[in-house]
Amino acid sequence: VSRVLVTGAEGFVGRRLVQRLAATGAHALTLVDRALPAAREEARRIQGDIADTAVLAAAIEAPPDLVFHLASLPGGAAEADPKASRRVNLDATLNLFEAAADTGRRARVVYASSIAVFGAPLPPAVDDYTPAEPTLTYGAHKRIGEIALADWSRRGVLDGISLRLPGIVARPRQGAGFRSAFMSEIFHALAAGETYELPVGPDATVWAMSLSRCVENLLHAGLMTTPGEGRALTLPAVRARMDALVAAIAAEAGVSHDLVNYAPDAALQAQFGSQPPLSTPAAEALGFRHDGGLEALVQAVLDDPDVRHKEPHP
Amino acid sequence: VSRVLVTGAEGFVGRRLVQRLAATGAHALTLVDRALPAAREEARRIQGDIADTAVLAAAIEAPPDLVFHLASLPGGAAEADPKASRRVNLDATLNLFEAAADTGRRARVVYASSIAVFGAPLPPAVDDYTPAEPTLTYGAHKRIGEIALADWSRRGVLDGISLRLPGIVARPRQGAGFRSAFMSEIFHALAAGETYELPVGPDATVWAMSLSRCVENLLHAGLMTTPGEGRALTLPAVRARMDALVAAIAAEAGVSHDLVNYAPDAALQAQFGSQPPLSTPAAEALGFRHDGGLEALVQAVLDDPDVRHKEPHP
Repeated sequence: VSRVLVTGAEGFVGRRLVQRLAATGAHALTLVDRALPAAREEARRIQGDIADTAVLAAAIEAPPDLVFHLASLPGGAAEADPKASRRVNLDATLNLFEAAADTGRRARVVYASSIAVFGAPLPPAVDDYTPAEPTLTYGAHKRIGEIALADWSRRGVLDGISLRLPGIVARPRQGAGFRSAFMSEIFHALAAGETYELPVGPDATVWAMSLSRCVENLLHAGLMTTPGEGRALTLPAVRARMDALVAAIAAEAGVSHDLVNYAPDAALQAQFGSQPPLSTPAAEALGFRHDGGLEALVQAVLDDPDVRHKEPHP
Repeated sequence: VSRVLVTGAEGFVGRRLVQRLAATGAHALTLVDRALPAAREEARRIQGDIADTAVLAAAIEAPPDLVFHLASLPGGAAEADPKASRRVNLDATLNLFEAAADTGRRARVVYASSIAVFGAPLPPAVDDYTPAEPTLTYGAHKRIGEIALADWSRRGVLDGISLRLPGIVARPRQGAGFRSAFMSEIFHALAAGETYELPVGPDATVWAMSLSRCVENLLHAGLMTTPGEGRALTLPAVRARMDALVAAIAAEAGVSHDLVNYAPDAALQAQFGSQPPLSTPAAEALGFRHDGGLEALVQAVLDDPDVRHKEPHP
């Protein structure tokens, strides 16, 4: 049994990851989040903000062998409140890494980074050599976390791996703070047979990954025997044009794609809907995977009980 | 009269920069350093560690229009004590930037970064597109400072510019903490007619800049009307093979190059003596300059009263 710490355990990704970890029974779990409403699984539960030093001390008290650091202030909220982003996405992140390093256990640390480390506009193609030049506060702070984790890993006191996540779909509706929310909203709207106005054009292109695939990749990063060695890996993702994504969702949901209206916001499309061809051989060589294709992605998302069986949005 | 804040004002670079700023008479100076022994120029003087919040508050009390952030824990010391490096090179640096941003004056901030943001081994050539992938704690923390400064600049609350300094010569003898000290020691030794054992081979290659040229570049960054816009610029530098550098110093100092013995340390040479051809068009377009060539570099260094007229090392 290894000791596993999950921050942001009650978040969109965290909740599903914890379910999967708990199902294996092989881990002593410590869960941290600002709200931990119900004890769904056997775990040490620490309710509070990871940016609070007492919460961090409690989280690390039983030194973990494996840390999934998912807690973060999302991109839109970070842009609106850079001081809060510094506190959570930068200072608390580095404090957590340093505290884990100080335990002397050389813990595997899986850090949920983001494609936001690449600024906008993106180059004509993105690959493992594309420099990380963030252009939003969220991406800047994520990149700082990657650099710090790589340095502690190089020093041999952590075994870190940063995963640059693409758009994970479908986040719950009204998931505040993500300006890229349209990528999730489109699934919820069509699954519920509602109209939806997309803030990008049919020619917009996005990198996407289903929640279930994201969780499998996180688990792989945590449990693979290859050392993390501080790598910052851009994960493979399905790249889709927005009109093709709409058509695939509509077909799978059994509704008309005419429910969707395009009202492009040029600035938003430039930031979140202009994702070029993506090549990720480093991550693939280590066993990380995308959903397999557009239809597989859409099916994985619509098969998700949190999407398919959700009550229609009022 | 503009208000100018200099951190690390009593350091190797800071002292000379302050002399130059004071000579113009156009600036109200605030100087910060852990020790400020003698009042050489008219200035507000704050003795203390910039990592101390009271010192930072005092430094920023009269809101500066221009900040030269030179204070840092050097590379060797940072590698030996990463917590101290985090405190000074990372947290205090970000605290200073944030405090300057909070004044609402959109201060020009000139940040002394370092070629250490490029890790070792370096690629076969370095240019403005070479990604910054640090491999020492010092370089990691400098890169973090660059990213944070660029983000505050993008937000329009600072007008920052990060200058990646090459080896600045000649630092005072026994300048603790710099593993690349050999680049300075060789000047002092030959100027004093002493023997010196170089820890790199004759084929080692280094990027170097004289102290006086470095100070001119810092002043240019501070006073140029072009906005900094958060740029991180690799400065032009003279690149020299170690045997050519030795020959040029010996010729200028009027001593034999036989005073020098080569005892290469492979690891040290890989880290500090394997600097490939360097191309810096972005900095040059903005008016930053190197010393002009190997002989001009050597002459500038040996003309420096702190090098030429120094008492021989006991």
